[in-house]
Amino acid sequence: MKVVCIGAGNVATHLSQALYKAGFVITQIVSRTEENAKALALSVDADWTTNPDNIEDADIYIYSVSDSALGEMIHRNPRKNGLHVHTAGSMSLSLFEGYKERGGVLYPLQTFSKGKAVNFKDIPLFIEASNADDLNVLRELASGISNKVYEASSAQRQQLHLAAVFACNFTNHLFAIAESILHEADIPFEVLRPLIQETIDKTATLSPREGQTGPAVRKDFNVMNKHLDKLTDHPEWQEIYRLLSQDIINNHRG
Amino acid sequence: MKVVCIGAGNVATHLSQALYKAGFVITQIVSRTEENAKALALSVDADWTTNPDNIEDADIYIYSVSDSALGEMIHRNPRKNGLHVHTAGSMSLSLFEGYKERGGVLYPLQTFSKGKAVNFKDIPLFIEASNADDLNVLRELASGISNKVYEASSAQRQQLHLAAVFACNFTNHLFAIAESILHEADIPFEVLRPLIQETIDKTATLSPREGQTGPAVRKDFNVMNKHLDKLTDHPEWQEIYRLLSQDIINNHRG
Repeated sequence: MKVVCIGAGNVATHLSQALYKAGFVITQIVSRTEENAKALALSVDADWTTNPDNIEDADIYIYSVSDSALGEMIHRNPRKNGLHVHTAGSMSLSLFEGYKERGGVLYPLQTFSKGKAVNFKDIPLFIEASNADDLNVLRELASGISNKVYEASSAQRQQLHLAAVFACNFTNHLFAIAESILHEADIPFEVLRPLIQETIDKTATLSPREGQTGPAVRKDFNVMNKHLDKLTDHPEWQEIYRLLSQDIINNHRG
Repeated sequence: MKVVCIGAGNVATHLSQALYKAGFVITQIVSRTEENAKALALSVDADWTTNPDNIEDADIYIYSVSDSALGEMIHRNPRKNGLHVHTAGSMSLSLFEGYKERGGVLYPLQTFSKGKAVNFKDIPLFIEASNADDLNVLRELASGISNKVYEASSAQRQQLHLAAVFACNFTNHLFAIAESILHEADIPFEVLRPLIQETIDKTATLSPREGQTGPAVRKDFNVMNKHLDKLTDHPEWQEIYRLLSQDIINNHRG
C-alpha cells in the first residue's frame, strides 16, 4: 500500500512516522510549508511537494490538516482514485461525497505536541468508511500502528471529540490555572503531580462521579467562600470556580 | 511518641494507618461515630472513644475532621499539653491560639477515598508550626510516612489547597462530564484514559500553558460552535465550555 500524507503538523508528523515505523510506504508528504514538508519527508523517506497539483498516485491519501483547510485540500487533490482518509474528530465522513469515490476516517484520540514522543500502540484509533471493503483497508492500516482500533460513526466521533475537549484540553487549562495560583505562592507545579496522578488512577476503580472529592461535593461553603475571596484579582477564575462548584453540587443532589 | 487521632473519616483513616505502619504508637481514635471509631481503632491497634472528654494524654493530637468541626474539637479536647496538629488545607495555624500552647499543621496534598489505597510515601506533606522545636517534631513524624516533606506557611497552604481544587476536584468533574457525553454515544470512559494520561505526562516536559492543545487555543470557532450546538440539552456544560474556551483564548493572546 502506497500512502500519501497531506499535512505536516503535529498529527501528520506523529501519524506518518508511526506508519513508516510499522513498515508502510509513505511515498509523498504534501504541505503548504516547504520547511515542514521537507523535514517530515526526510524522516519517513518520502518525496514532498508544496503544490497539491503535484500529488502523486497512491492507494491511500491521509489528510491531517486543520478542519478549516480540510475541505479545500480534498477539493484541490486532483487524484480521484484510492481511499481518501481524514483524521479530524469533528468532521463528517460525508465531506468526501461528490469529490472522491472512496472516503474514510481514521481519528487518533490523543493530544500531540511537537517534540513530545507518544507511544502510538496505546492510542485508540476510531475508524469509519462507507463500505465494508474500505473499512477493512482502514482496519489493516490502523491495526499496524495501534492495538486499540474501534469503529465509530461520524456522530459518535463528534461526541468523542467533545468529550476529549473536556477531559484533555479543559483539564490542561485547569492545570495552567493551578500552576499560576501556585506561582503566586512560590510553589512549583511539580508538587501537584501525585495528586493529579491519583485523580486519574482513581477512575480505574471508581467512576469520576463516584470519586468526586473537595469542598463543593461536601457543600463546604465556608472553604468555597475563602477560595473565592482569594481569587478576587482573577474574576475569570472566580467565575470558573463558581460554575464548576455549582455543577458539582447539582450533580450530587439527592 | 504517643499519638491520639481525632477523626475517623478518609484523611484520618489513611493518615492513622500510615503512621501505624511506620511504627508510631496510636493510643486512641476519637470520633463522634462509634462504628467509624471502632473500625479505625481496630486497624491501628488503638483504644477509641466517642466522647472528647475522654481523650487520653498523648504527645501529639492529630485533628483530621471537617473544617466546620475543627474549631469545636480543638475547644472540646480537654488536654492542654502536647502538640496539637490539624491537617486542613484552608485553616490557619492560628486556630490553636488561646486554646493550646503548641500548635502545628500537617497537610497531606492528596485526594482520599474510602477503600482506595494510596502510597503515602509519595504524598507531599506540608508542615507548619509556631516554633523550631515543634517544626522538628512534625518533620520527624512526617518524614516517617512520606519522602516528600515541605514547609509551608498558612498563606501558602491556602494557595496550595485552592490550586488542588482546580487540578484535582474540578479536573475530576470534567472527567465526569466527559463520561456523561460518551455515555450518550454508547462509548465507555475507558477510551479516554490514554489521552488523559498523556495530558498529565506532558506537563513533565512542557508547562501546562505551553502544552495547551484543542480548538480554543487554535481559535477554531467552527469546531467550538459545533460543540456548543451538541451541548444544547446541557446549558450548564455549554456555559462551562464557553467560559473555559474563552479563558484559554485570553491566556494565549499575542
